[in-house]
Amino acid sequence: MQERKTAISPTRFEDYSQWYLEIIKAADLAENSPVRGCMVIKPWGYELWQNIQRVLDRSFKDTGHSNAYFPIFIPISFLAKEAEHIEGFAKECAVVTHHRLEIKDGKLVPAAELEEPLVVRPTSETIIGAQFAKWIQSYRDLPLLINQWANVVRWEMRTRLFLRTTEFLWQEGHTAHETEKEAIEETERMLEVYRKFVEEYMAMPVLTGEKTPAQRFPGAVRTLCLEAMMQDHKALQVGTSHFLGQNFARASNILFQNREGKEEYAWTTSWGVSTRLIGALIMTHSDDDGMIVPPKLSPAHVVILPIIRDKKDETKILSFCENIAKNIKEKLYNNQQIEVIIDNSESNAGERNWKWVKKGIPVRVEIGMKDIEKDSVFMSRRDKPVKEKISLKKEIFINKLPDILDEIQNNLFERAKKMLKENTRNIDRWDEFKEWFTPKNSEKPEIHGGFAMSHWCERPECENKIQEELSVTIRLIPFDREKSGKGKCILCGKESPGRVLFAKSY
Amino acid sequence: MQERKTAISPTRFEDYSQWYLEIIKAADLAENSPVRGCMVIKPWGYELWQNIQRVLDRSFKDTGHSNAYFPIFIPISFLAKEAEHIEGFAKECAVVTHHRLEIKDGKLVPAAELEEPLVVRPTSETIIGAQFAKWIQSYRDLPLLINQWANVVRWEMRTRLFLRTTEFLWQEGHTAHETEKEAIEETERMLEVYRKFVEEYMAMPVLTGEKTPAQRFPGAVRTLCLEAMMQDHKALQVGTSHFLGQNFARASNILFQNREGKEEYAWTTSWGVSTRLIGALIMTHSDDDGMIVPPKLSPAHVVILPIIRDKKDETKILSFCENIAKNIKEKLYNNQQIEVIIDNSESNAGERNWKWVKKGIPVRVEIGMKDIEKDSVFMSRRDKPVKEKISLKKEIFINKLPDILDEIQNNLFERAKKMLKENTRNIDRWDEFKEWFTPKNSEKPEIHGGFAMSHWCERPECENKIQEELSVTIRLIPFDREKSGKGKCILCGKESPGRVLFAKSY
Repeated sequence: MQERKTAISPTRFEDYSQWYLEIIKAADLAENSPVRGCMVIKPWGYELWQNIQRVLDRSFKDTGHSNAYFPIFIPISFLAKEAEHIEGFAKECAVVTHHRLEIKDGKLVPAAELEEPLVVRPTSETIIGAQFAKWIQSYRDLPLLINQWANVVRWEMRTRLFLRTTEFLWQEGHTAHETEKEAIEETERMLEVYRKFVEEYMAMPVLTGEKTPAQRFPGAVRTLCLEAMMQDHKALQVGTSHFLGQNFARASNILFQNREGKEEYAWTTSWGVSTRLIGALIMTHSDDDGMIVPPKLSPAHVVILPIIRDKKDETKILSFCENIAKNIKEKLYNNQQIEVIIDNSESNAGERNWKWVKKGIPVRVEIGMKDIEKDSVFMSRRDKPVKEKISLKKEIFINKLPDILDEIQNNLFERAKKMLKENTRNIDRWDEFKEWFTPKNSEKPEIHGGFAMSHWCERPECENKIQEELSVTIRLIPFDREKSGKGKCILCGKESPGRVLFAKSY
Repeated sequence: MQERKTAISPTRFEDYSQWYLEIIKAADLAENSPVRGCMVIKPWGYELWQNIQRVLDRSFKDTGHSNAYFPIFIPISFLAKEAEHIEGFAKECAVVTHHRLEIKDGKLVPAAELEEPLVVRPTSETIIGAQFAKWIQSYRDLPLLINQWANVVRWEMRTRLFLRTTEFLWQEGHTAHETEKEAIEETERMLEVYRKFVEEYMAMPVLTGEKTPAQRFPGAVRTLCLEAMMQDHKALQVGTSHFLGQNFARASNILFQNREGKEEYAWTTSWGVSTRLIGALIMTHSDDDGMIVPPKLSPAHVVILPIIRDKKDETKILSFCENIAKNIKEKLYNNQQIEVIIDNSESNAGERNWKWVKKGIPVRVEIGMKDIEKDSVFMSRRDKPVKEKISLKKEIFINKLPDILDEIQNNLFERAKKMLKENTRNIDRWDEFKEWFTPKNSEKPEIHGGFAMSHWCERPECENKIQEELSVTIRLIPFDREKSGKGKCILCGKESPGRVLFAKSY
């Protein structure tokens, strides 16, 4: 290993969870708020979220979905309509009980109690279901394909910026269909929309498959999911798509007249991704010098750093920089204007450079008098070591920029794919399995082997026991599980129809 | 008046408030939800909101603002820090008091009481102020220019779709500055951003000015506003921009070291517009046949209605329509792709046509075999009578479309300007003033004169008395009030430095 000081301390391998928090701080993405478990998303983090929204919103529209907005409050009685659903969410609900504040004995206290308490939505199946029941009369009204961008609240006891917060931002798709088959196709289609987005935009390779019954969304018949590997080799669930069968249609009374003129319950789905994606992005690509943002989602692509050693050169250097910025903005990358920032803030050149390294902007260029004399720029890329800088003729740099951004995007994806591949293993023996999940490298005291593709007998007993013993869960059952061939359950040795993905997880 | 049945019943002049609700229903914009006072925004309404967001977001960025996101919950103690502020909002707060649900005696009830109750944000000055206090240390950190897109909750007793709902969507800008002058300039700059947006995009002429002390935002030093005239001649406040002085900086302890090295409170502003804009849009442009959406904000610009009288022509007609749609999408209007919908749903041609009339799409074209034979389309525009249709050669239609949309946008604006001008009057006598605000036309039993520019002595007594007697308030004091010359207060006859805007209002 290279002997140099890193911008982020501790490093990934010294203390992974602290490193994660330091990255967020150094990139100025978010911070804790005075309200327990609620985060403040700062501009660099929020713009990243807006870019995620823009791309996904387009994909949802391209697959026929419309956006709508439903109340943030859900009457308790609605939530209670689906037994497993309320069981799953009752323990973590923010409950509104009053609608006024009054001064009593010099203290401000809640007043005007509500007849029925309201829950701040943890998810919206039941409140959206109530409207669907009104909107759907006949098979002609189906499919009904709706998406909502919203904030949701789940009262988490242990929170962590982006990964698990009391309030978070997300999108939730809710659809209703005429047949079981169509609803299942929708569930799969949206999983595929997520997969494409996560791989092509976030540069994160993912495994897709189905959750075990124990890990399903409360009330779902099937839960499909995407799982990605973080740099500490733990899995992170980046999105889910649920086939709800007729469970929620029954709970919300979503009935329609079918083609035979009979009343029938609709088949529904729901699917969502959240600001958790930003946590996944950080933990996939960042290094010990800070964040690395994939160009396709970066709030800005290029920062120009004027290097002014002599005040008399200032005008000349700045106008050279502005001219480059103007030319860059005329270029397209991934059908979007390339975003350029000129950072001429008061801090010295080194500090400014490190600021943008830590924020993970894809390309940095330094421009001083020497560069102007050569009509060139001094460029560094965030996918390469910080000290690696090359001088490029101005015109060449501007023309090559879209390709450079493409290269960076690809490099990040390839690097993440390599990590996933190198740290995923077929394991057939319990002792090897146990060892795989036990950190043993003294240089990386927290890092265990990674993902294990192993056999499972499909009994919850084995699933539970493995979780209790090793904190390892079945992340997903691959859709092509059978392809891996039959085998013996990693724990009990009973028959297994194929391998499943085991991992530690967030 | 023309003798024909209207698509919307009652008409504007028969029953204005019911007409408003019927327009919303007919255009399928929104509806009431099972949660008291909370609305469901349906796709046509939500896409309109997304377009509003897109344009404003660009304007905010162009004026140097960044987006961020802050917690939905505000601890009671934060809200209480600014005395006028809590006074203004205490009566309409949704209060979260528990964070769990439990079954007790077979009933689901709130459990796990919070130590300090939380309020669902009615506005975010205090919670954002807490972060600003952390972010701002020195004059170098100023100005700090932040915007938030969010939902807010105010427990309104009498609600009305879009205009006054318990939950609504909005943006709230929050900025901090080094000097009073800079903060006032920001307050004025954002008012101007709103004015340009409302006039250029919503095609709504507005009057701008300052609120009287009685009408200020709770805690503000000055509240600037935009007021528009609805078709029933009432005023609607479409946006506000507040100069908060050092009041909120003091409440949240936003201190900075100034250029002289001394600690000083920052000067702050806040400004916002909400989904109320959609209510204003409806009431400005809609007619007795439904909504009329200004082209620059319309979720779609053109609907193509294939007229298939004979099943055997279907393929030919549909491919002709698709070809036109494709050509239209290659055109730009206002730097955006023109959005086209082909509506070939099962309902008959007349029903389909009326559906889009009611939704207010700017341009409708019908295409049947006869049109194809002439290589033409049969076009109608929403700014013209529904029955007025003209035949245009296909190529001409496609090429002229951007101009046609421009014309419609302009016509709507001119029409609204005319309404505002014709129904605004300088009034100097109390009896005329009273008459102006009293409906007397038997054909329009609800409609009074309109806006009155009249003199006011600046005493709250007169302001209150006029409100009590006529339900008329001072909507704003024009920035150039002095220009209108001195005069006598419309009520008491005392000295007045110039005219102010009196109106009934929403």
